[in-house]
Amino acid sequence: MTSPMILHEYTASGNCYKIRLTAALLGLPVERREYDILKGETRTPEFLHEVNANGRIPVLQIGERFLPESSAACFYLAEGTRLVPEDRFDKADMLRWMFFEQYNHEPNVATLRFWLAYVGEERLSEAQKAQVGAKRAAGDAALKLMDEHLADQDWFAGGRFSLADIALYAYTHVAEEGGFDLAAYPAVGRWLARVAAAPGYIGIDA
Amino acid sequence: MTSPMILHEYTASGNCYKIRLTAALLGLPVERREYDILKGETRTPEFLHEVNANGRIPVLQIGERFLPESSAACFYLAEGTRLVPEDRFDKADMLRWMFFEQYNHEPNVATLRFWLAYVGEERLSEAQKAQVGAKRAAGDAALKLMDEHLADQDWFAGGRFSLADIALYAYTHVAEEGGFDLAAYPAVGRWLARVAAAPGYIGIDA
Repeated sequence: MTSPMILHEYTASGNCYKIRLTAALLGLPVERREYDILKGETRTPEFLHEVNANGRIPVLQIGERFLPESSAACFYLAEGTRLVPEDRFDKADMLRWMFFEQYNHEPNVATLRFWLAYVGEERLSEAQKAQVGAKRAAGDAALKLMDEHLADQDWFAGGRFSLADIALYAYTHVAEEGGFDLAAYPAVGRWLARVAAAPGYIGIDA
Repeated sequence: MTSPMILHEYTASGNCYKIRLTAALLGLPVERREYDILKGETRTPEFLHEVNANGRIPVLQIGERFLPESSAACFYLAEGTRLVPEDRFDKADMLRWMFFEQYNHEPNVATLRFWLAYVGEERLSEAQKAQVGAKRAAGDAALKLMDEHLADQDWFAGGRFSLADIALYAYTHVAEEGGFDLAAYPAVGRWLARVAAAPGYIGIDA
């Protein structure tokens, strides 16, 4: 890890924060390059050609190679460290929660935060407005599942703090910006405090 | 890998097929237990309590432990084999395409197949009908991105056949059941044929 890494990102994005938090916890230096997604800066021909044909951030640049997808970038940074369990089942179980986050949690919890706190409810399309109710229900279902899991366990996988916790923390700790009531999930609240107490922790605005 | 593994599944699900295909390519025996998702058999109290609190298949059972999320189960089966690159970047890049599949591809390509070929268009809710156009566009965007990637590369990650190809193959090769026109993606078509020619390959109905 001697060549400088560059994180192509939008600071307020929880997906980008996952990578910054992983790097901070591991003491890895990462340069940052900011794009305003509200102004379409990740959809320019240059970005699509050079950084990510999928037009999305985050992308972790390692030398001349580009790695999109937040969870893949975290895995790249953390495999072989304390943040990834070595046990075969535990490592797969960590990935299980990271896939759950991208499939069941992020499209609901993160999307409602983006729509309500960044785009603005009055600027949503009719199609988006029609989805708010379903995303609210699905987001609450994801938070409830997390709360039940955490009722008798401190962490998501392998009995210890791992990338699964980082992935789920990123958008959960700002879920209230999307109108979710975290007080309804007390075990989640205690887990959020445990994550924030980790040595080397940085906030999303750091 | 001496204890018997059990795949809790619904045969027609591409997510379940990913695990069966991975196991077949590696020669690993997996027992199968079928649930009819159209009859709600993965939402019963027994299933939620014993197999997966998230009410979804597939779940790979290893002894007394349960591993949901298709991509995590494939990773459990295949890490350390030829289906997972050893190189650090390539392994993360494989995961990158697996996360892309679950975030950008499956919710569109697989969901339209399920809605149109299994539920039936006439049985869709108004909210579902309102999403068909957006899912069609997003699914085509995912297929286009794949086609561009495959224009000058045979495989998705690490220059070889890996779990990334299995994950993306599962719903792509049946995308026409969801109304997608694969003829529009010729590089995808050639790649589908390469996957189907892999030694040990089995079809989704096998």
